[in-house]
Amino acid sequence: MSACEFESLEKSLESHLPEAELSEVKLVARFDLPACAVSAAVERDFELKGYRFEAAQEQLRPPRRIRVGLIQNHIVLPTDAPILDQVNAMHSRIGEMVEVAAMCGVNIVCFQETWTMPFGFCTREKEPWTEFAESAEEGNTTRFCQELAKKYNMVVVSPILEREVLHSTLWNTAVVISNSGNVLGKSRKNHIPRIGDFNESTYYMEGDTGHTVFQTQFGNIAVNICYGMNGAEIIFNPSATVGALSEPMWSIEARNAAIANHCFTCAINRVGTEHFKSEFTSGDGKKAHHDFGHFYGSSYVAAPDGSRTPGLSRTRDGLLVVELDLNLNRQISDKWSFKMTGRYSEYAEELTKAVRHDFKPNIVKE
Amino acid sequence: MSACEFESLEKSLESHLPEAELSEVKLVARFDLPACAVSAAVERDFELKGYRFEAAQEQLRPPRRIRVGLIQNHIVLPTDAPILDQVNAMHSRIGEMVEVAAMCGVNIVCFQETWTMPFGFCTREKEPWTEFAESAEEGNTTRFCQELAKKYNMVVVSPILEREVLHSTLWNTAVVISNSGNVLGKSRKNHIPRIGDFNESTYYMEGDTGHTVFQTQFGNIAVNICYGMNGAEIIFNPSATVGALSEPMWSIEARNAAIANHCFTCAINRVGTEHFKSEFTSGDGKKAHHDFGHFYGSSYVAAPDGSRTPGLSRTRDGLLVVELDLNLNRQISDKWSFKMTGRYSEYAEELTKAVRHDFKPNIVKE
Repeated sequence: MSACEFESLEKSLESHLPEAELSEVKLVARFDLPACAVSAAVERDFELKGYRFEAAQEQLRPPRRIRVGLIQNHIVLPTDAPILDQVNAMHSRIGEMVEVAAMCGVNIVCFQETWTMPFGFCTREKEPWTEFAESAEEGNTTRFCQELAKKYNMVVVSPILEREVLHSTLWNTAVVISNSGNVLGKSRKNHIPRIGDFNESTYYMEGDTGHTVFQTQFGNIAVNICYGMNGAEIIFNPSATVGALSEPMWSIEARNAAIANHCFTCAINRVGTEHFKSEFTSGDGKKAHHDFGHFYGSSYVAAPDGSRTPGLSRTRDGLLVVELDLNLNRQISDKWSFKMTGRYSEYAEELTKAVRHDFKPNIVKE
Repeated sequence: MSACEFESLEKSLESHLPEAELSEVKLVARFDLPACAVSAAVERDFELKGYRFEAAQEQLRPPRRIRVGLIQNHIVLPTDAPILDQVNAMHSRIGEMVEVAAMCGVNIVCFQETWTMPFGFCTREKEPWTEFAESAEEGNTTRFCQELAKKYNMVVVSPILEREVLHSTLWNTAVVISNSGNVLGKSRKNHIPRIGDFNESTYYMEGDTGHTVFQTQFGNIAVNICYGMNGAEIIFNPSATVGALSEPMWSIEARNAAIANHCFTCAINRVGTEHFKSEFTSGDGKKAHHDFGHFYGSSYVAAPDGSRTPGLSRTRDGLLVVELDLNLNRQISDKWSFKMTGRYSEYAEELTKAVRHDFKPNIVKE
């Protein structure tokens, strides 16, 4: 099944499991998407799915139902097409997908990591990839997203390769744009992998924005893996990651973060295999080649109770629309109370000791 | 399927998925268990499964293959039988299961949480449950485990209800016994749930042993959820947890801990429904009842690469034997380098601020 990519575990389960057993493993409700959105998605050739997480009715708070949209997509033009053409083609593809998100009543949309460009860092070439970098505040792509935000009254999380002119520095940055169209701020990637062909550390450094939380009309949100002490209600995790390497972990990490932090998490991965003109080696003794492997999509949303939506396809562009009642966060927190029963003061103290260069761990020997 | 408990997701997958699709979702190799062990398990009416995690061959280190055994089991006698009879019956049941573990070459065995007793904390009655508490160093159960340890040259992790006479205190404690038969030390449960009928906080307090690591002949081990800074190679997580409440999280948390800490994790849960003579209410407006719900077993081992063994049954006693090559931990660490790319100093600093009573989070507003 390696020539033709495996579709998804959910698909296999749905295709083969008897209904009674399927009901044991699948819990999240679908919701009815408007017919115009469904037909637009077919026409524009992307997958469209809709799910809903419910929370209990409370006496003192009305439900705080909002809808998030996660977009995963292939690059549109070949990786050696002129840069501006590539960016414009991506803008146009995302534009038509966001239009469908708007038809579905999405309030906050998030795109995949460095969405305006191929994930060309595998090549280790500075050119042309660094030319895709843009100002987070004033770049073309941010302006494009601001238009979308205003037009559709939608918060837009736009992960780009950022060029900070002032410090002559590149960053891997998510720009958060309010539904008013204003740039609310940005969150820079904090953990830069040193593994395989990602080679991101060649291009940018660890972020300096900490675990910022953005207060929007639709809830407090954060971007990337965040540790929840700042009260984010939804954490977006735009990613670009390939097959054999990370797929065994994909279904786990965002769910665990949702559980541990009593919040919703949105895991987004790009999709498809991107071919590069220059061949490159992978530091594994094998021959040079022209692609980084298959980006397996599978974007999904996880809830604080550990439930999750099925993932989008491993192979197709897709828009996942998920209705959340943010009240579920506090309900689960009141129930499990991890923030209360967690020994955070002790962790802080232990961690402070553990990061010292002369740290001696407490190991019991016979 | 609620009257007759659902067996397991793995069983459903194995029964219904075509081979080609199954191979996409199942990766861990089985290993051949000795015939004497297989027939003893049938005779003694418990499930016996064996899996193996492989690591790459290195030039400078030989493989460090060890075998862990996870035991899950029903209580043996009714919960109102005389205490000593109940404890003796559990000793005898565990004794016959550990004998099979020895036939399978197990080096480190771990039993379920408070394994000598019913999980009677749901009743909120102090009597007779507190009478099950024993000294971690000199109790009957520890002596029993010391005999097992010496006889089979096996490290034994024995989670009991501990009575500390000096401070007139009870603890939820795992006693770690070296294969020499000596008590190596103990690890007290750190996070006491405040949810549903667990009611554990009525009986004991948060542990004071931190995240101790025990150096054994077969590797450095820790017990319960640990944060990995102390270099544990295997973390045992003996649990007692029921159906609808925690099952959506069961398959996630130990795997995530294995990934995040570059180590093996062993998740163990008891099995069966325990009936209590006194009825009790659950703080949910419903009628009083006599049981806490179904403990769903499903014990499994997770590896640092995110793979995991299938779980043991949701309904039967079982012994899971898993061969690990501990070299896999450093191999995965050298590959992913989470300890290096993680921003631990920054976490320590942020967490130290976040636990202060006057903490003001960094929230960006428009």
